[in-house]
Amino acid sequence: MQRPVARAVVTGGLWHHWQQLNRTASIPLGIAKLSEAGNLTNLRLAAGEPLEATHQGPVYMDSDVYKMLETVAFELERGDDDALTAFVDEACALVAAAQAEDGYLNSYYQVRAPGERYQNLTNSHELYTAGHLFQAAVALARTTGDQRLLDIARRLADHLVEVFLVQRLPRLDGHPQVETALVELYRCVGVPEYLELARRLVEDRGRGLVGSHPAGRLYQQDAFPVREMTVVTGHAVRAMYLEAGIVDLYLETGDRSLLETSQARWENLVAARTALTGGHGARQLKEAFGEDYELPPDQSYNETCAAVASIHWSWRLLLATGEARYADLVERTLHNVFAASVSADGLEFFKGNPLQRRADHALSVGDPRWRDGWFWSACCPPNVTRLMSSLQHYLATTSGSTLSLQLYGDARIGAVLPVGEVDLAVSTALPWDGSTRVRVESAPGAEWTLALRVPSWSPRPEVRLDGQPLEVAPDEAGYLRITRRWRPGEEVGVAFDVSPRLTTPHPRVDAVRGCLALERGPLVYCFEQADQPDGVDVEQLRLTGDAASVAVERRELDGIGATVTLTVDAEELVDAPRSGLPYYPGERSWTTRPVRATAVPYFQWANRDRRAMRVWVPGPAAPAAGGAQRS
Amino acid sequence: MQRPVARAVVTGGLWHHWQQLNRTASIPLGIAKLSEAGNLTNLRLAAGEPLEATHQGPVYMDSDVYKMLETVAFELERGDDDALTAFVDEACALVAAAQAEDGYLNSYYQVRAPGERYQNLTNSHELYTAGHLFQAAVALARTTGDQRLLDIARRLADHLVEVFLVQRLPRLDGHPQVETALVELYRCVGVPEYLELARRLVEDRGRGLVGSHPAGRLYQQDAFPVREMTVVTGHAVRAMYLEAGIVDLYLETGDRSLLETSQARWENLVAARTALTGGHGARQLKEAFGEDYELPPDQSYNETCAAVASIHWSWRLLLATGEARYADLVERTLHNVFAASVSADGLEFFKGNPLQRRADHALSVGDPRWRDGWFWSACCPPNVTRLMSSLQHYLATTSGSTLSLQLYGDARIGAVLPVGEVDLAVSTALPWDGSTRVRVESAPGAEWTLALRVPSWSPRPEVRLDGQPLEVAPDEAGYLRITRRWRPGEEVGVAFDVSPRLTTPHPRVDAVRGCLALERGPLVYCFEQADQPDGVDVEQLRLTGDAASVAVERRELDGIGATVTLTVDAEELVDAPRSGLPYYPGERSWTTRPVRATAVPYFQWANRDRRAMRVWVPGPAAPAAGGAQRS
Repeated sequence: MQRPVARAVVTGGLWHHWQQLNRTASIPLGIAKLSEAGNLTNLRLAAGEPLEATHQGPVYMDSDVYKMLETVAFELERGDDDALTAFVDEACALVAAAQAEDGYLNSYYQVRAPGERYQNLTNSHELYTAGHLFQAAVALARTTGDQRLLDIARRLADHLVEVFLVQRLPRLDGHPQVETALVELYRCVGVPEYLELARRLVEDRGRGLVGSHPAGRLYQQDAFPVREMTVVTGHAVRAMYLEAGIVDLYLETGDRSLLETSQARWENLVAARTALTGGHGARQLKEAFGEDYELPPDQSYNETCAAVASIHWSWRLLLATGEARYADLVERTLHNVFAASVSADGLEFFKGNPLQRRADHALSVGDPRWRDGWFWSACCPPNVTRLMSSLQHYLATTSGSTLSLQLYGDARIGAVLPVGEVDLAVSTALPWDGSTRVRVESAPGAEWTLALRVPSWSPRPEVRLDGQPLEVAPDEAGYLRITRRWRPGEEVGVAFDVSPRLTTPHPRVDAVRGCLALERGPLVYCFEQADQPDGVDVEQLRLTGDAASVAVERRELDGIGATVTLTVDAEELVDAPRSGLPYYPGERSWTTRPVRATAVPYFQWANRDRRAMRVWVPGPAAPAAGGAQRS
Repeated sequence: MQRPVARAVVTGGLWHHWQQLNRTASIPLGIAKLSEAGNLTNLRLAAGEPLEATHQGPVYMDSDVYKMLETVAFELERGDDDALTAFVDEACALVAAAQAEDGYLNSYYQVRAPGERYQNLTNSHELYTAGHLFQAAVALARTTGDQRLLDIARRLADHLVEVFLVQRLPRLDGHPQVETALVELYRCVGVPEYLELARRLVEDRGRGLVGSHPAGRLYQQDAFPVREMTVVTGHAVRAMYLEAGIVDLYLETGDRSLLETSQARWENLVAARTALTGGHGARQLKEAFGEDYELPPDQSYNETCAAVASIHWSWRLLLATGEARYADLVERTLHNVFAASVSADGLEFFKGNPLQRRADHALSVGDPRWRDGWFWSACCPPNVTRLMSSLQHYLATTSGSTLSLQLYGDARIGAVLPVGEVDLAVSTALPWDGSTRVRVESAPGAEWTLALRVPSWSPRPEVRLDGQPLEVAPDEAGYLRITRRWRPGEEVGVAFDVSPRLTTPHPRVDAVRGCLALERGPLVYCFEQADQPDGVDVEQLRLTGDAASVAVERRELDGIGATVTLTVDAEELVDAPRSGLPYYPGERSWTTRPVRATAVPYFQWANRDRRAMRVWVPGPAAPAAGGAQRS
């Protein structure tokens, strides 16, 4: 079992840039939007203030307030700020005033449908919204000691215990989330009924308590009891928040059947239901997981909230098992689909994150829409801010006398091991370059182990201890383990291999058959029209160069800022006049011309124009079947 | 300008089988469902009958009654039947009783929302539903002389003229369909205001009269005036019914700008937005067209109603231009996506018609659902029955002294040419074999031209006249033209080439890159799990054989009946244990074993089990990029 470290602070590099952008742009925007969109007014209405206004937005509007409170809680640990404190004061007072006598709290049902509490849990998000309050309350109490929100959360949780555990109302929320939040609240305040309620809500899944329509039961993870689910199904965010709750329940109860079945689903998720960017949810329709290997680059949803849920799930599996593969997925998801959801100025957000956008997408209907500053259903933006504000949580863990570095960013990390306190300074050129240094700032005299996660993209990094080569092979879990009596000032240097990779898909991934993608270190790249030579159409490219010939260039690009571009040999299909259907008897040959094609990191896409983009680009043409069909 | 022939009757072969199945299974089912689902009760409620019942179903429930009446009208031309006549009598009486004093007719708004006439045309389908009444009324009057429905239709049309042409209510129906129906009603009864109303409804498109949301305007073909639309956008059925209306308007007004812009959209449709099966509508979300070359085999919608709308549009373009390419698409759509929508027993229908179904599809949510006997939104089944009942309309056309055979089925065709009456008997082995005979049964003494459409899949058929080879090359429009003084008993024999074809996609069709499909004659084939040798997984196949090596076999298969199977050399991917993401640095090699794979016509799929199916199957693997990346 891994545990979070005592202290971690991001001190520089790309992560620090992201956190600063979040603090200076995204969070002020979000706080302003909570007023503009009516979220705060909704709470005032619930509190009975005599306003002219009406309740605005969907049933889960309160949850955006809670996500922003959780965000700000993390920010206040990183540094005081009057505006942030004022928001916490205002929001806490509003939430306190809105809470009903018996602890119930949901402005939509209090204002718009007061007689319908828990009558429509399939869609009402009442427990989901409560869960976000619990998470915010725990964060605020932990980072600032402020108990105001925690008191409100406990009153609501006690009320839920009464309704769902004591009276045992036979219904479940159609949107899981409260399960993981209840476990977290239990960890914070130690009330065993909260854990027991989480257990009931997990164990009752799959018994028809959400809805009765078969498709709805798959959509809302109510088709099978959790130990009988073989794959994640339905709405991707719901599915993975539930998984986070399942693993949390294991972490507190030790029930291995919960862990093992969740692990099996995660293995299937990774093998057949994850986009190269770490995106989850292949279908725009229902924002849902599709079938195994159904991973379209153009029409996948890959919701930003699903990236957050996926990170929550994988991280809890990492805590449960100490296996590097879970951190691998967190790293991929974080650096690619999640980071791409925010614009370079921090002011606009994608809900869906496709891996391909065609030039004529503006003439088609349906998601994914373009980035926007906020949405009617604004689940994603405050999910971005709360994860950005808590990136430091994903840096390291401890287990016994081992301190494990999980993700690499410039950071100060403080941990309390059985042998004493350890303080590390990590500095890294990642994701732009592989060189990484871990310096022991303070350490006890006794022996302990520094474990360094080996990323899947650099399986054999070079390691030096105080400048001297150190032979150390990854263990089975995927870590380089160095056990010694560390002295302050000692430094481990790791050279991760960030050579460009030309990545190919498994032959079952139908939608990108015959394509290649460029990756480098933890970053997936994409080809945007903006970076191609004049006259070269990104939709007509085929990659022909090999990985060794890829040119790596550090650049500063308008709209994007600092980046590293990759340029590769390619050919452009010279379009023949179109005539008839795009299907031909036998092979047809096409004229091509050699070009060079340039890619930027996927997380930096869509910051210059709305033209075409591709992550997966066709490779060389396949030979004709039977070798004898050219016409 | 081509015109319909005077008489055409399907006399045998597959088309006759389809029509018999339609008459004996689908139509009785449909008539029964109209009672079960409440469609007839809705009309009784609108007529003010004092029933306990409430109005059932969506706003367009009446349209299913009208489609079934149109179906039965066509059937009554093919032969009397007491049950069919009884249905016409009952339905006509109900519709007459339901019609309001002022001619308005829509049971939903009359019963459920009487004050909201035309207030919600974005979604209300009031004009769409009227259009289906007009089509049924015209069909019934033409085939049986029965004027009852026509009188009702005229009263409703007069009412629409008053509201939308005289008072000029500035709104349009979100679902086009009434435009083509009004032109047809005009042709039947000659009231110029009906044509003028159709013109107004077409010309006002794209002026924001449907809805105000930009995505909604694309969805409902209201984003651009019709002459400025460059591509079909939005909901596929809506888009193509509108196109049928646009071309109909050209046919009656001669406004070439309407024809030319519709043709340009059709050319784009064919070049970049049509599935191999002739399916239209790449997206399940919104049942909509996607982007150019967005043609996923698994998640495309390819709605059955879109197949009907597409056939209506292409047929009208054929009438306008006399170009064989339009009949080519009708033939493809009819024999593949449309025919596949009905089960082999005629009792179940697909709404969506994908080209791929994975083994685990039952665990995913969202359309396409499996075939069903009826649906809450039952637009497709009665659209199937009305087209099946009217297949004979698509056999032949005349223009001047030319009689053109457009599609090939066993049939008797009678036409009135300027030189006199002509009667032909066509017999063909199509789609199972290519041999086709056209016998002149009666003819005037003067010279006239027999034109035979050359299908795109057999560009150089062998032709014989009374057994002697005849050298005749297709003209520019795509027809073999034989002009002579035909004598009764003369016979033209055509040997169409139905050699199996291994079809490859245009390199821009992303979703099936590197795949091959089997076609033969007008039929697209598919690989169902049911036909593969024991232990061979259809999802692990790669086709390796060439077209010449495909074995063709006439068979009788359980659940399917008579068919012709195709068997081809292939290899099966031997699955390696799954581990981690399905993406690899460089090329990874896979173990395969040689197998034989068998395909059945796509239109016969899904009649045995619900296991995996693929139209497009991977071909041989592509070479590594740069030739140097195998790992």
